[in-house]
Amino acid sequence: MSERKATAEWNGTLKEGEGSFAVGSGVLSAAYSFDTRFGDKSGTNPEELLGASLAACYAMALNATLEKEGTPATNVKVEAKVFLGKDENGFKINRIDLETSASVDGVDQSKFAEIAENVKKSCPISKALAATDITLKATLANAQAA
Amino acid sequence: MSERKATAEWNGTLKEGEGSFAVGSGVLSAAYSFDTRFGDKSGTNPEELLGASLAACYAMALNATLEKEGTPATNVKVEAKVFLGKDENGFKINRIDLETSASVDGVDQSKFAEIAENVKKSCPISKALAATDITLKATLANAQAA
Repeated sequence: MSERKATAEWNGTLKEGEGSFAVGSGVLSAAYSFDTRFGDKSGTNPEELLGASLAACYAMALNATLEKEGTPATNVKVEAKVFLGKDENGFKINRIDLETSASVDGVDQSKFAEIAENVKKSCPISKALAATDITLKATLANAQAA
Repeated sequence: MSERKATAEWNGTLKEGEGSFAVGSGVLSAAYSFDTRFGDKSGTNPEELLGASLAACYAMALNATLEKEGTPATNVKVEAKVFLGKDENGFKINRIDLETSASVDGVDQSKFAEIAENVKKSCPISKALAATDITLKATLANAQAA
């Protein structure tokens, strides 16, 4: 079992204070604030970090699964959209939309869609998010007319 | 409802290929690989991104809740440890350990621990991770002897 770390810190009030975070590898760190999360100020926030975690995991897992099936992809692209709304207990991630497109020889769109759907169940980050509604749209980038 | 985005891409095989991701705000992007995720190569991975998302959300939410309770913190620190293991369906986040310490006047350790526990239920990222076991250790940084 491997252990990965990240830290975060907040100083000051919710509206005027500022947060910062850093990942354990030291590769990434940034400031965030009320306005970069709930407002329009340019900057990062926990929701796009969650999207990055899921998109990165999914891209790797889809690539690995296609390779294992004997039809490796030359390229896999993923976009994650994270929707933040509210429920009776305050803010809530309402839904995550995943959209993937891949260049793969030897599979048709329907087989590709089936593999992509299975990967949603095997990628460790989407498993961790099992309580959250995740939609998936999977398109073969190099699909040919039948 | 606000929408946040991130993208990821993978090129090449699982073991020799390389991934990259970027958050929608444009503030963060990085490469990752099989070795930065499952090996010891220096670099980032989806697990520490997930930890950063949760730690950042939790630090902000704990700060906001303490402020709302009339006992604002001057500083909140959070560390998230994400444990990646395996189950019968492959890799899996086995557990996330959150550890927080905060400087707060006007609350004792037991009241602080209660608030910290409640914030685990209100922070939108920990709600999204409801299917994942999250432990919490909360310590008042400025606790005084009774």
